Amino acid sequence: MSSVLSGTKIAVLGGDERELILISELVKMGATVAVVGFPKGKMAHGASPVNSVEEACKEAEVLILPLPGTNQEGVIRAVYAEEEIRLSEKACSSLAPNALVIIGSARQYLKDWAQKYAFILLEIIEMDEIAIMNSIPTAEGAIQIAMEETPITIHGSKSCVVGFGRVAITLARLLKAMGSDVTVVARNEGQLARAYEMGCRKSLFSELLEVIKHNDIVFNTVPSMVLDRKILRYANPDTLIIDLATQPGGTDFEAANEYGLKAILAPGLPGKVAPVYAGRILAEVIPRLIINEMTRMNKNILFA
Amino acid sequence: MSSVLSGTKIAVLGGDERELILISELVKMGATVAVVGFPKGKMAHGASPVNSVEEACKEAEVLILPLPGTNQEGVIRAVYAEEEIRLSEKACSSLAPNALVIIGSARQYLKDWAQKYAFILLEIIEMDEIAIMNSIPTAEGAIQIAMEETPITIHGSKSCVVGFGRVAITLARLLKAMGSDVTVVARNEGQLARAYEMGCRKSLFSELLEVIKHNDIVFNTVPSMVLDRKILRYANPDTLIIDLATQPGGTDFEAANEYGLKAILAPGLPGKVAPVYAGRILAEVIPRLIINEMTRMNKNILFA
Amino acid sequence: MSSVLSGTKIAVLGGDERELILISELVKMGATVAVVGFPKGKMAHGASPVNSVEEACKEAEVLILPLPGTNQEGVIRAVYAEEEIRLSEKACSSLAPNALVIIGSARQYLKDWAQKYAFILLEIIEMDEIAIMNSIPTAEGAIQIAMEETPITIHGSKSCVVGFGRVAITLARLLKAMGSDVTVVARNEGQLARAYEMGCRKSLFSELLEVIKHNDIVFNTVPSMVLDRKILRYANPDTLIIDLATQPGGTDFEAANEYGLKAILAPGLPGKVAPVYAGRILAEVIPRLIINEMTRMNKNILFA
Amino acid sequence: MSSVLSGTKIAVLGGDERELILISELVKMGATVAVVGFPKGKMAHGASPVNSVEEACKEAEVLILPLPGTNQEGVIRAVYAEEEIRLSEKACSSLAPNALVIIGSARQYLKDWAQKYAFILLEIIEMDEIAIMNSIPTAEGAIQIAMEETPITIHGSKSCVVGFGRVAITLARLLKAMGSDVTVVARNEGQLARAYEMGCRKSLFSELLEVIKHNDIVFNTVPSMVLDRKILRYANPDTLIIDLATQPGGTDFEAANEYGLKAILAPGLPGKVAPVYAGRILAEVIPRLIINEMTRMNKNILFA
Repeated sequence: MSSVLSGTKIAVLGGDERELILISELVKMGATVAVVGFPKGKMAHGASPVNSVEEACKEAEVLILPLPGTNQEGVIRAVYAEEEIRLSEKACSSLAPNALVIIGSARQYLKDWAQKYAFILLEIIEMDEIAIMNSIPTAEGAIQIAMEETPITIHGSKSCVVGFGRVAITLARLLKAMGSDVTVVARNEGQLARAYEMGCRKSLFSELLEVIKHNDIVFNTVPSMVLDRKILRYANPDTLIIDLATQPGGTDFEAANEYGLKAILAPGLPGKVAPVYAGRILAEVIPRLIINEMTRMNKNILFA
Repeated sequence: MSSVLSGTKIAVLGGDERELILISELVKMGATVAVVGFPKGKMAHGASPVNSVEEACKEAEVLILPLPGTNQEGVIRAVYAEEEIRLSEKACSSLAPNALVIIGSARQYLKDWAQKYAFILLEIIEMDEIAIMNSIPTAEGAIQIAMEETPITIHGSKSCVVGFGRVAITLARLLKAMGSDVTVVARNEGQLARAYEMGCRKSLFSELLEVIKHNDIVFNTVPSMVLDRKILRYANPDTLIIDLATQPGGTDFEAANEYGLKAILAPGLPGKVAPVYAGRILAEVIPRLIINEMTRMNKNILFA
Repeated sequence: MSSVLSGTKIAVLGGDERELILISELVKMGATVAVVGFPKGKMAHGASPVNSVEEACKEAEVLILPLPGTNQEGVIRAVYAEEEIRLSEKACSSLAPNALVIIGSARQYLKDWAQKYAFILLEIIEMDEIAIMNSIPTAEGAIQIAMEETPITIHGSKSCVVGFGRVAITLARLLKAMGSDVTVVARNEGQLARAYEMGCRKSLFSELLEVIKHNDIVFNTVPSMVLDRKILRYANPDTLIIDLATQPGGTDFEAANEYGLKAILAPGLPGKVAPVYAGRILAEVIPRLIINEMTRMNKNILFA
Repeated sequence: MSSVLSGTKIAVLGGDERELILISELVKMGATVAVVGFPKGKMAHGASPVNSVEEACKEAEVLILPLPGTNQEGVIRAVYAEEEIRLSEKACSSLAPNALVIIGSARQYLKDWAQKYAFILLEIIEMDEIAIMNSIPTAEGAIQIAMEETPITIHGSKSCVVGFGRVAITLARLLKAMGSDVTVVARNEGQLARAYEMGCRKSLFSELLEVIKHNDIVFNTVPSMVLDRKILRYANPDTLIIDLATQPGGTDFEAANEYGLKAILAPGLPGKVAPVYAGRILAEVIPRLIINEMTRMNKNILFA
């Protein structure tokens, strides 16, 4: 058993199967882990279930919140919890000095508390190493939906990926590898050059209207209204739309419905289609982030 | 509208969505098509629903039965039919002279009738052009099951394909393309050389016991008992087994159950996961077979 | 014949086969093209060979210099020219007002002249759409060298790509597609996540010493001394090093030589291994750049 | 050191770098190896250079001749030999009883001697495990030639593979993986179904005339005159033809020359482009063949 986190007090509040894998790793690395929101039976031996958020957070050097984070009222997503778990200002105020708080993305109030109580807030959902690793189950989950919802094969299908960010690159490669005829719709010629290198057809957004006429499956990854009413009316009635952008997606679902198009909003796929994989990512990345942060702070202390 | 089948009398008995696509193609090519087992509303304009198998078969030059064929009692698989459809000796005896009967695979009685009534029986399920084209939806359907039944991604998984025939080759390539670490288990060194060329690891059947210890997903394609009790007891408890071999498959499902392994028999995937694709295959291949056969017979007549 | 560049005066000075393809495209688009450095017989009908750089530049609205640009003394790379071609301050001063000067990358004196004579300088070698498109022949050229210089196949080889920029991404994908076992050595975890998604092994630069021990072929793409004496001494004597970084590359060639390693510096591959492809890229991108720039300037004029 | 071949007397006559690797492996496995045609300095320690074919063969239980075999006069290909090496009837007659003679492919006289002197003749060049493994360097060598001889990239090129045997399948996959737009020309619909599954376009031989008009690179793998004068006259003048079929290939080279087409006959690529790889194949396969044969004979003896 490694012990690089030996003695570090870590609180984990809520989450799902992914956090169970993370907790298990943290325990293995020697951390003292207090957990809220998981039944005792499910957790790794060595982690301590505690009764309240406040108890878990008290003097914790690291606080870990799930990727989907909290809602506006502080309620933490916790699929195994019997009752609502809520992050309170009181809990945050009792963290150890210079504590590290890790969350997918933070609401404004949490950012304010970070200032007020001088803890370090690390929003990880947009970090490349998380986002790219998670793009793999996202792409596979999107393919799974496409398989379930169409009467054709991916091989030989005509598909279109709108946007060319981290998820889109992974998805385009996967579709291509599976034998689909893929068109990438992107913003600039540099992105399209990369799409071409990957074997895809390429189109600018200005050509989206033409593209949508000729594809069996359209995957959107852009988090703003790109598949709007004007575009959707040109879609073939058999076209399936799968929207992977953050809620509320980039599709006018009402218009899609009017035009008789099947359109599916599919957020949060990694936790749904591959929770064990997604948990392993957390278990790989989060300890590294903690260690890096602790190293950085120690240096600061040493050289202060 | 092409008319290469103009005037040819064809009977289609039963089937599913695939036959609807085939019927539509036959009508387009000018054939006179009598159909049993589909509601009028579903069928292509131009095809004639008739009331009985006997009526459809009378003087028919071509008789088309579905890929899954008939059972021992002559009952034809017909998912849209309201009542049982049964192939009778009487119907077969009334076909036109030298009629062509196309079926997935034929039971013995049908072979006997072919002799007795001098019709030509074409069993197509083992023809390369059908079997290889159908290996694509079979492989994708197998992947879909794997995605649905495992909490990990195909990318980065360890998978194993047992056998190296038409379905296995397609499946191995697809798994590899999706980023799985694939081991092919095959009978001879020539097959293993091909698996190696495709980027797979290779094992002989004698090594299956070792292989099964180290894989997340095992796909069987061999239609005889290869994943037996002796082998299965070495499987990791998280291993998922997907058996694609013709019923009853090549897995000892009882033993799998005893050892707590999830094992799924998945026959007939093309018609289930990609009926439109599978229908297009029939619509492409069957007219070609009919034309080839008719050309061959005409030649025989000419040169007789 | 399109005529979007109708009437535009363009000077092309020097270059190689690539510029011949570009000139031909410019003529097709209606431009008036004056050329220095190509024999009349080689050039597209419609382009005008002129005798001096000064004559070509006089009143030219666009000046195109080759991707490798000029040397410190102004000498322009011109493989077909019989005598040296030199870019003079006088020539630059006689360009049309607000002329557009397109070059791979510019020396300081040219930047100074751009200021002094108010022309627009467009350095294109680092533009994504040029660099990514050129990464394809660069990667293929690197593979060709590897094939020529090793007694093994790429399939089954162990290869390593140092760096993960535009060339490296293309090269890693190509090696992987050809069946090599590829390790990417990169600077950050985000890049390594992408490498992993592409099916590659991943290492940080701090692990380069270990990596170099176990690879048959090492491709460097980083333009600073990364394969230095300390690293190279751990290389297997059969290792082949191919350095694709801008001259002088990122390899200590002297040390490589001492350790008996074959190390090859291979700059400028696109023009060497695939001049027609590389010419087509210029013929696709440069007219677009000219049109964009002219559109932008006209707008500025209109709204001035 | 393994010793499964301990005490087995093996003669190796001629060959090239590949046989050096094989000899080294045989020595490692404990065989007593007598060699003709290699300088002492090049050979593995433990192998014995002898002065004549007759001496090497006397009482040898296994005789290994190179893949290219002998010519009609018995001369053995031996690139390192200072003088001609010739297989004589006398040498063959002095082999141990039931000796195993391994050769690429045998001339008639050798088959006759096998009968006369009761040795077992194993022609291996057409064995799947040799031919498929060798298809990898053949395909890579063909790609290398294409890279060297065309001014375009493989990526984005239009290529055509004529035939769909062991080399063609490997080559089609490699071209496709590198981003070429590949058409497979084959004899039957089953082969074309496989080509389609691999992502290739498909054509029957009857369409070859059309296919040849539209491809940049044509690879022939069929060992009979398929690219004849009638076909070649339709080729685009820039088309490159690479013929991989056994000499004299399947191209009318004279006609190609007349039509100004570049056509290259490229036999024996594995030994040329990847001798170490090809040697490893021999070193893996030949000992296995020897052991299998010895096991089989022992059984026969035991049960005789």
